[in-house]
Amino acid sequence: MSVEFAGLLVYALGMSITQEQAREISEQRSRSETTRRVVSPGLEALLYQPIEVLDHGFVRVIDYLGDDSAIVQAARVSYGTGTRSVRGDAALIAYLMRHRHTTPFEMCEIKYHVKLPVFVARQWIRHRTASVNEVSARYSILDREFHIPAPGNLARQSTQNRQGRSDILEGDEAVRVLEILKDDASRAYGHYEELLDDEGPGLARELARINLPLGIYTQWYWKTNLHNLLHFLALRSDPHAQHEIRVYAEAMLETVKAWVPLAHEAFVDCRLEGAELTAKQLAVVRRMLKGDAVTQETSGLSRRMWDELQAVLEGRP
Amino acid sequence: MSVEFAGLLVYALGMSITQEQAREISEQRSRSETTRRVVSPGLEALLYQPIEVLDHGFVRVIDYLGDDSAIVQAARVSYGTGTRSVRGDAALIAYLMRHRHTTPFEMCEIKYHVKLPVFVARQWIRHRTASVNEVSARYSILDREFHIPAPGNLARQSTQNRQGRSDILEGDEAVRVLEILKDDASRAYGHYEELLDDEGPGLARELARINLPLGIYTQWYWKTNLHNLLHFLALRSDPHAQHEIRVYAEAMLETVKAWVPLAHEAFVDCRLEGAELTAKQLAVVRRMLKGDAVTQETSGLSRRMWDELQAVLEGRP
Amino acid sequence: MSVEFAGLLVYALGMSITQEQAREISEQRSRSETTRRVVSPGLEALLYQPIEVLDHGFVRVIDYLGDDSAIVQAARVSYGTGTRSVRGDAALIAYLMRHRHTTPFEMCEIKYHVKLPVFVARQWIRHRTASVNEVSARYSILDREFHIPAPGNLARQSTQNRQGRSDILEGDEAVRVLEILKDDASRAYGHYEELLDDEGPGLARELARINLPLGIYTQWYWKTNLHNLLHFLALRSDPHAQHEIRVYAEAMLETVKAWVPLAHEAFVDCRLEGAELTAKQLAVVRRMLKGDAVTQETSGLSRRMWDELQAVLEGRP
Amino acid sequence: MSVEFAGLLVYALGMSITQEQAREISEQRSRSETTRRVVSPGLEALLYQPIEVLDHGFVRVIDYLGDDSAIVQAARVSYGTGTRSVRGDAALIAYLMRHRHTTPFEMCEIKYHVKLPVFVARQWIRHRTASVNEVSARYSILDREFHIPAPGNLARQSTQNRQGRSDILEGDEAVRVLEILKDDASRAYGHYEELLDDEGPGLARELARINLPLGIYTQWYWKTNLHNLLHFLALRSDPHAQHEIRVYAEAMLETVKAWVPLAHEAFVDCRLEGAELTAKQLAVVRRMLKGDAVTQETSGLSRRMWDELQAVLEGRP
Repeated sequence: MSVEFAGLLVYALGMSITQEQAREISEQRSRSETTRRVVSPGLEALLYQPIEVLDHGFVRVIDYLGDDSAIVQAARVSYGTGTRSVRGDAALIAYLMRHRHTTPFEMCEIKYHVKLPVFVARQWIRHRTASVNEVSARYSILDREFHIPAPGNLARQSTQNRQGRSDILEGDEAVRVLEILKDDASRAYGHYEELLDDEGPGLARELARINLPLGIYTQWYWKTNLHNLLHFLALRSDPHAQHEIRVYAEAMLETVKAWVPLAHEAFVDCRLEGAELTAKQLAVVRRMLKGDAVTQETSGLSRRMWDELQAVLEGRP
Repeated sequence: MSVEFAGLLVYALGMSITQEQAREISEQRSRSETTRRVVSPGLEALLYQPIEVLDHGFVRVIDYLGDDSAIVQAARVSYGTGTRSVRGDAALIAYLMRHRHTTPFEMCEIKYHVKLPVFVARQWIRHRTASVNEVSARYSILDREFHIPAPGNLARQSTQNRQGRSDILEGDEAVRVLEILKDDASRAYGHYEELLDDEGPGLARELARINLPLGIYTQWYWKTNLHNLLHFLALRSDPHAQHEIRVYAEAMLETVKAWVPLAHEAFVDCRLEGAELTAKQLAVVRRMLKGDAVTQETSGLSRRMWDELQAVLEGRP
Repeated sequence: MSVEFAGLLVYALGMSITQEQAREISEQRSRSETTRRVVSPGLEALLYQPIEVLDHGFVRVIDYLGDDSAIVQAARVSYGTGTRSVRGDAALIAYLMRHRHTTPFEMCEIKYHVKLPVFVARQWIRHRTASVNEVSARYSILDREFHIPAPGNLARQSTQNRQGRSDILEGDEAVRVLEILKDDASRAYGHYEELLDDEGPGLARELARINLPLGIYTQWYWKTNLHNLLHFLALRSDPHAQHEIRVYAEAMLETVKAWVPLAHEAFVDCRLEGAELTAKQLAVVRRMLKGDAVTQETSGLSRRMWDELQAVLEGRP
Repeated sequence: MSVEFAGLLVYALGMSITQEQAREISEQRSRSETTRRVVSPGLEALLYQPIEVLDHGFVRVIDYLGDDSAIVQAARVSYGTGTRSVRGDAALIAYLMRHRHTTPFEMCEIKYHVKLPVFVARQWIRHRTASVNEVSARYSILDREFHIPAPGNLARQSTQNRQGRSDILEGDEAVRVLEILKDDASRAYGHYEELLDDEGPGLARELARINLPLGIYTQWYWKTNLHNLLHFLALRSDPHAQHEIRVYAEAMLETVKAWVPLAHEAFVDCRLEGAELTAKQLAVVRRMLKGDAVTQETSGLSRRMWDELQAVLEGRP
């Protein structure tokens, strides 16, 4: 099922967007007005377009303010004008990122429309420096959509890491787990409808929803500035973040790349692929560079700090 | 079941606190150290003591900073010193409250330990200006505790107000509703245990929890300043707030009264029982005071604004 | 002196903008690109254009995100869809404003470029919920521009109100005051140049500036959302705010009116011209409406609260 | 001049505290009440005591909430309980610091009373996540106290670094600079008094202050949580921060050490003396550890990034 418009196709992705939403998206994307504002051509191309995430979720950019040049403009009001070449801009943005001069990155703003399971929303909302308007289950009746993990994500609990996953369930065990998850979600939703039924109990919406599962989907508008967005993405695209929020972060990273390519490049170099070392770890690196054969025992580091240092030096996450 | 200490009894409230917690509370309450800091005797009496809320929830104060005198001290650094009588302090605090001079109220801080259902936590967390540490269901296994409404709270959906409740369910209908809620919650928790079982699938905790109901209890430490706390309480103790969060707000109002009695009194007068009128509504009041017999039709107000004005003038919520 | 462009004139206002800035503004205003984003035609017309404030200051809008429809969109994701007429939108926005449902107003964002005296900047920056990049006097040499009050603003200290003004100085006294202000500012700037002089002491910029007067002009980019902007404007356009910041707030109110006319109208009705009454004051109004002849003595109100009530009922600020 | 109390001496430091303040401090320090709250003995010893900074400034702790154990308690509600030894606490706090798990550090709060020059206050206030009440020069008449640099701090502008200092002025040049700074400040204050004079112009306070120099002293209460405090201290105790704010940061670091010794130790190791390396810099370190003789030319790093890396590897600031 698809809807054509403006030379593009919006697929009604799985169940993630309805035909009505596809029509609305088509209308939004066919809009074209003139503006005196700064425009990011890369992000204009993606505007309103849902990026599919998980089984029924999506992320799409609804609006934005500023681009790489707004970061440079803000830095230059503070630090005075300098070179104005693209190369100069890239170096300036990388410098700001490296030295955590964060306020110029606040001069860009972005607004997303996100559809996501409640347990993901609960992790997401802990980032306080954003504006949010979420569908209210006191007012509205939620749709019959729950997250059920794909078979390839049905991971066992790690025994080493209290918050980690290990190998993937297979065969009958996987079948049984999926059966439980689907049946319970389905039963809970069936009862939700029964409780709400006007001709039945007609229970208040705000009460009828209390037995819905944490995997049910919700939606919100989420607006934040680039500095806070990058902080969110650094934490939520990290390998230690739960897979189910990481896939949202990864989709959003693509929108950042389209929007502010210079800031994105600096962010990847400094934050995503860079590392922080403590004074004690740096002292060990200095000894190594002098040719000392340092072991954990002779390093003065705890086993954990030593392992973390090895991971950095070997380029492992 | 109760635990005696320091001349007080901590009741192990329903299932809301465990015996181990009761012991910990007893230890905390028997602590007595000397300090040079400002002390609020009213709040010291309540410190650590859980106030029971809903079926398995509680609120308790864990720590605080400042009292009414800290508000006065902060105002006086800004506005200069004045009278220093208790009467002067009460009038100054009322003045600050009335004129929304809010920064002096930020000079007091309080930290709560709260146990609450997830659907209440989701409303609560929308208040961004607080610090929170919550039990993580990625790390920990949640307890078998869900909110099931008391029979007297099983309200039907209002037909007038999309987020409101009307009359209470009775008889077989109420019995059936409670049965559904209890059975589903219980089945979901049983399956949670089965999914987690080491000898069974041993599913990762962060996945096993996705079918738990929104009514399951969680816990957190929640710390905020008095200004933000009062804003929270104004919104969440309001008759339009959902009953299940209002009962938390009411319990917390008692702690505010014990802690900063002058600020509490001003808050009740200005915010909880005061009202805001728009320019158009004030114009109608002025006509009425001159003796005009104003009706909705002659008022220039919409029906909704007229009704809201009537409610204020008649002292209805 | 003026610069013509795109059919408009940018006056090089007094000394407030330089010819180079006038050229930059002209370039910015002649920009025209297509966008899929929501556009506010009213604000596009004002974009980049400086609005002159005080003797050398200005405010100009540099960028924005959203319009009245973004507020409505955000409210509807929370509260469900309703009527979609312009009349419906106005009523919905007024309802949100009246009931302090503030989050939908956070969905609009605006960025200003402001030139202002340091003593005004110090009041302004107390509003913490904004992003700011200011010219740094550690890096840059400040220009020779100070605020000197216009003769009509040279007010005496009020004897009633510790932060108020009374009548205007005249004749020789006014002349003498202006002379002092101008001479001291001029001398301080002359010494600043002498201290900085490479061929003289060549003092570090961050030190040379410490004797510059609080009236010297600075500049910044200031970006905030509509909710926080309206809060700022309510406080800073208030008759109790210092005149020198109020003129900035008034200029910005005009930009809000051009940008989000429905939100502006609701804001004026609810906040700027509305009033809050305490429970005790409302009780007095109720007695008056029943025909009681209430006096301060019989009202139960303090003198101050009685006077405040009278001001509201008589429509005085 | 000194005031004795409770076995301690409060020196009326230079002009930084008045005799009345010394009496008030003495009273505050002699206070002793019992509390059930967590107490930090190290910080109790310093409570209320001014630490002298610059020529007339000070910092003193007025109140606090929590200690190292509050950080651990908050982490454990999120991540579950673990070992409870002091060693375990130190390792847990170091782990949280290293991995930027910042919310547990928000569970501690501290309130300072600070006296500082306005140009320092302007840098300080850019940290938005704090509560502040400052003396208002609209209400109050400021004291005759300005910052004049000590001769050893009269540094020339750096030619390499636009915000840096180089060598110290000496001889006649230093004398002349100090003369200018003192004379201008003194003249400005004299005129301030003349403008305010009731028997003269009696200019409004909010106007009379506009020619006071940026070096005049102001005072405020400043309250923040430990996470935000450490962020402030990392930036403001950095060698690139202006000397005149760095001395405040250094004084406050001492209070942090007394208050939360474990968090302080982790902060020094991770933040103050640790370093962040970008992906490109880490690649160079890996090549060096393999024995490659890397030069800037072969490193793929810009000159600036190469120099920054060298500084880290050689342990230079």
